[in-house]
Amino acid sequence: MSETNLHDVAVLAKALITCDSVTPARGAVFDVLEAALLPLGFAVDRFVSGEAPDGPVENLLAIRGTHGPHFAFAGHLDVVPPGPGWTSDAFAAEERDGLLYGRGAVDMKGAIAAFVAAIPAQSDGTISLIITGDEEGPATYGTPAIIARMATRGIKPDLCLVGEPTSTARLGDVIKIGRRGSVNIWIDVPGKQGHVAYPHLAHNPIPPLVAMLAEIEALVLDEGNAWFQPSNIEITDITVGNPATNVIPGHAAARLSIRFNDLQSGAALADRIDALAKRHAPDATVIARVSGEAFLTPPGAFSTLIGDAIEARTGLRPELSTTGGTSDARFLSRLCPVVEFGLLNATMHKLDEAVAISDLEALRDVYADILARAFAEQL
Amino acid sequence: MSETNLHDVAVLAKALITCDSVTPARGAVFDVLEAALLPLGFAVDRFVSGEAPDGPVENLLAIRGTHGPHFAFAGHLDVVPPGPGWTSDAFAAEERDGLLYGRGAVDMKGAIAAFVAAIPAQSDGTISLIITGDEEGPATYGTPAIIARMATRGIKPDLCLVGEPTSTARLGDVIKIGRRGSVNIWIDVPGKQGHVAYPHLAHNPIPPLVAMLAEIEALVLDEGNAWFQPSNIEITDITVGNPATNVIPGHAAARLSIRFNDLQSGAALADRIDALAKRHAPDATVIARVSGEAFLTPPGAFSTLIGDAIEARTGLRPELSTTGGTSDARFLSRLCPVVEFGLLNATMHKLDEAVAISDLEALRDVYADILARAFAEQL
Ligand SMILES: [Zn+2]
Ligand SMILES: [Zn+2]
Repeated sequence: MSETNLHDVAVLAKALITCDSVTPARGAVFDVLEAALLPLGFAVDRFVSGEAPDGPVENLLAIRGTHGPHFAFAGHLDVVPPGPGWTSDAFAAEERDGLLYGRGAVDMKGAIAAFVAAIPAQSDGTISLIITGDEEGPATYGTPAIIARMATRGIKPDLCLVGEPTSTARLGDVIKIGRRGSVNIWIDVPGKQGHVAYPHLAHNPIPPLVAMLAEIEALVLDEGNAWFQPSNIEITDITVGNPATNVIPGHAAARLSIRFNDLQSGAALADRIDALAKRHAPDATVIARVSGEAFLTPPGAFSTLIGDAIEARTGLRPELSTTGGTSDARFLSRLCPVVEFGLLNATMHKLDEAVAISDLEALRDVYADILARAFAEQL
Repeated sequence: MSETNLHDVAVLAKALITCDSVTPARGAVFDVLEAALLPLGFAVDRFVSGEAPDGPVENLLAIRGTHGPHFAFAGHLDVVPPGPGWTSDAFAAEERDGLLYGRGAVDMKGAIAAFVAAIPAQSDGTISLIITGDEEGPATYGTPAIIARMATRGIKPDLCLVGEPTSTARLGDVIKIGRRGSVNIWIDVPGKQGHVAYPHLAHNPIPPLVAMLAEIEALVLDEGNAWFQPSNIEITDITVGNPATNVIPGHAAARLSIRFNDLQSGAALADRIDALAKRHAPDATVIARVSGEAFLTPPGAFSTLIGDAIEARTGLRPELSTTGGTSDARFLSRLCPVVEFGLLNATMHKLDEAVAISDLEALRDVYADILARAFAEQL
């Protein structure tokens, strides 16, 4: 595989897909990316972070340049397991009818290849690639570890583009300028088991649980705002596990999932549910796990620049969206304005994941234009 | 074993306990009772009722006399499984320090033996024994089948004494003049499964379930009355079974247990819960199973007569109680006034179930006095 080849978007995409990198990604797939970046003049910093159970994780930070605006591209080389039933092998990177098939084709080895192919021989600013081997897994030692590494090295980008597959029907129809946050909360209410004929000798934990859940269900967290739908609470499970019709159970539990906008914070929501639950059951246990805070890069120069580049190549003006699950943009948004833009997401995480070669080429062109405009406008 | 012996309360109690009759009772234990009754002039009608899964069940209806007041004694020859850990074999009927040990000693072979031993050679009325082999099991083809048999034969008692162990600290301290009814209700709420990030595409069944349970929990069915505590609803289980934190479940269910007094009926309660549930979730499924209606034999001549007989022999004036679970008295109360009175219940359904020989003798004497008073007063 020659260096010239790896600067070709389709060649590099195929080379990356061919490396089985079911999360967490290790070794070979990083070797391919490093081999593509070195000839372009990048200093490539590969390192391993964390320990079991959420690590170790392999990460890569590549930088070229020391002056001018610092433009970062972020992404992940790990992929979700392909599962059985593919038409051709998930890691064969087979091309049929203008489509390149393989796990990671759109999420997101194709976008990484497009960005590398978009990098010009020289540019009026600093370019970095923030590439983790664990975005699809626990992500504990992925992008956050690279951000910590950057802090140690005194590196801070001015703009960040995340290559997640944001397009829905046509390349460039949707970019993401924010994501909702997410917190899961487990509520456990202890009681005292007993016989239904003698309720005064028992303490049924279900009534206080039901009362608190009714109050939680009635909460209106916010009305949303210009860029986010209202925050939403779902009660996703209730567990009692009492098989005996004549027994008052000794224990009842529930689980909530809250998806919230930038008017809320995960920690404040957890505190609010904790206080509400304990008003109904003072001995309740409430455990919260915040998987990500909400983030928003308010529409402005960066999203306009990306929209202009997309429109110039595709004729489409992208919708600015904040929907969907979480992404690593939640970590990167603490550093600088972050926008997500990548390939079509229709086949991501599915059988026969595939990308059109023409989309790879168009994405390369848009990425190249974004880089050129960012450096020209000195954003 | 001679006929004379079987009219002795301790001998008959031992003979009955010696027959392993874990529910449903069959054969030998009925042979012993029949052998005890035939010399007393009873016509013994043994028959088998029902089919799988709740049958077949062996039952016995014994009658002596055709004129005067008809006094019925009701009971069961089946016992609950002894379980491991007994000091002596649960069916050995071993006597130690004045106590007779064995499964069924108090619940209720001892009481059956006491009643048989209490029957005089002649009496001024009709005496019957309504003895089932299935009270501890499903009871579908037990006492109800004997009642049906009696109806077919045109037999209807005027008074009925059920020999369940009602005494708590001393023989005769408590008799039961009523029992609460019991109904179990299963509520199933269908929903539409989906991802928590897209709640508008799903339909979470938990909120309507929680709302209806909160309303059910707040119901005040009644305040009780002179003879019953208030009716009580317990939510005994909630089942969702959703392991995925990011999934809105497609299904949620709950189970209620209602113990109710004679101000309520099982069918009316079931209808009320059904209507309430469907206001919150029109497509909910509500299934009710009434295990017994409440019954009350209002304090009067029969309970006074029994109290007098107890007081004459023991010096105790019994408390008239309506507490505890259900018994076969719930079926018999449709025929005539029913009162329950029997041995101490401290060891029933437990390891080393035992009865004092002196209690067996005292119970025999009280039962004999009850019979004598009932026929003398022509109740
Ligand atoms: Zn991805
Ligand atoms: Zn019993």
